[in-house]
Amino acid sequence: MEINRTKITIIGLGNVGFHLAKVFAEKGYAIHQVFSSSANKEPDFVRAINAKIITKINQLDYSSDIFIFCLKDEVLPDILSQTSFTNQLLLHTAGSIDMHIFKGKSKNYGVFYPLQTFSKSREIDFQTVPICVEGSNHETEKRIRNFAESISKKVVDINSLQRKYIHLAAVFASNYSNAMYAIAQEILKEHQMDFDIIRPLIKETAEKVMEILPDKAQTGPAIRNDNETLINHLALLNDEEKKTLYRLIAGYIQRKNNH
Amino acid sequence: MEINRTKITIIGLGNVGFHLAKVFAEKGYAIHQVFSSSANKEPDFVRAINAKIITKINQLDYSSDIFIFCLKDEVLPDILSQTSFTNQLLLHTAGSIDMHIFKGKSKNYGVFYPLQTFSKSREIDFQTVPICVEGSNHETEKRIRNFAESISKKVVDINSLQRKYIHLAAVFASNYSNAMYAIAQEILKEHQMDFDIIRPLIKETAEKVMEILPDKAQTGPAIRNDNETLINHLALLNDEEKKTLYRLIAGYIQRKNNH
Repeated sequence: MEINRTKITIIGLGNVGFHLAKVFAEKGYAIHQVFSSSANKEPDFVRAINAKIITKINQLDYSSDIFIFCLKDEVLPDILSQTSFTNQLLLHTAGSIDMHIFKGKSKNYGVFYPLQTFSKSREIDFQTVPICVEGSNHETEKRIRNFAESISKKVVDINSLQRKYIHLAAVFASNYSNAMYAIAQEILKEHQMDFDIIRPLIKETAEKVMEILPDKAQTGPAIRNDNETLINHLALLNDEEKKTLYRLIAGYIQRKNNH
Repeated sequence: MEINRTKITIIGLGNVGFHLAKVFAEKGYAIHQVFSSSANKEPDFVRAINAKIITKINQLDYSSDIFIFCLKDEVLPDILSQTSFTNQLLLHTAGSIDMHIFKGKSKNYGVFYPLQTFSKSREIDFQTVPICVEGSNHETEKRIRNFAESISKKVVDINSLQRKYIHLAAVFASNYSNAMYAIAQEILKEHQMDFDIIRPLIKETAEKVMEILPDKAQTGPAIRNDNETLINHLALLNDEEKKTLYRLIAGYIQRKNNH
């Protein structure tokens, strides 16, 4: 596809929509419209990428070639029901929504799921972001793949069922490891220590598994069966929720290791 | 202290003892003896750093200036009971052991706790490793601090109680975030997908909290209160242990966010 002749509409300006609009604009695509129900969301950004913002879905202009839906899961069906496409390419970016949500809306549709955690304040190097693609037919899938390859070196064909499991795995690997960092943050704060002290440890823990697999990288009192430390740690924790989590995760590590 | 006149003995050649022997040898310290109960542990390494390996604690030569105990928590008291020091500097590297375990063995003792996860196969840049130090008296503490500063730029005075909480926080931030990676690894493997696909996400999740705090970095279905996804994910999980963990961590994220 010719980048400078491809018109893109981005529907939803959350973290994913924002970063996709940004990277596609940078690559030379024409970002035609950006839909966001909150009127003044990122006006400078939308101006900078030369796009028009629309706040009502009936303002949608159907002249774009590609429509990328970056909406919350529960919002997508309602927004979609207010649209009438001909055969433009329709994509969504959700981990857990089936590709066929677009059935009846266009013959050409699919999934464009970037496997990354996005925040507006952080730059993302899309070249290294795995993009999971799936298409409604062979030709469409090829087209989506080409489109994804124009921003990333790591495009992978993933069907809807596999994608659900990738999303589930991503919740553990990212959202839940961040929750573990947050518990550490709480414990340190309660005892007047700065989170900074633990940052090099977090960095090395993640870097380790860039080379080896997590089951080979496990360290700590649980895998050492250091019961004295486990008991002492449980006694140091001052709420039942953290105690239960501590015990369960220790148990998971120990059972997995003894298999 | 003069590095090339300071004789060090390392007691225990696990991951911590190995890396400390290595970095101190590289810095120019004389590694005098290395104790390891497993006879032929790392013979090439011990030879390379010009040290003598001993496998019985009664072979300990008391002419060293500093003795660093890098043993499993439950082994330290027994090994210590078989020694008789005069007033050499005694250090241990444990997160959860009180400094006064050395009381009666020497007047000069303390703690040298490097807050990092060590594996023999990975290089460690000690300059960036926080080292928590504590000493039995003012002069000893200063000496330990100087010693630590000869390898790290991040030496911090931490008392025994604070250190216990740092260790507890480290278990969550490192051992338990790695357990989350391991669960992701299992889920991907069960569905014939490579762990590689999730590595960029893990890296970015850790890098995010190098700049912002974890409670501000949280993303995912739990914090979005995306109950449909939470329910679907629970249905995809095929064992009770992971279901319980999924539910509890989602609950932790949601409760913390609604405060």
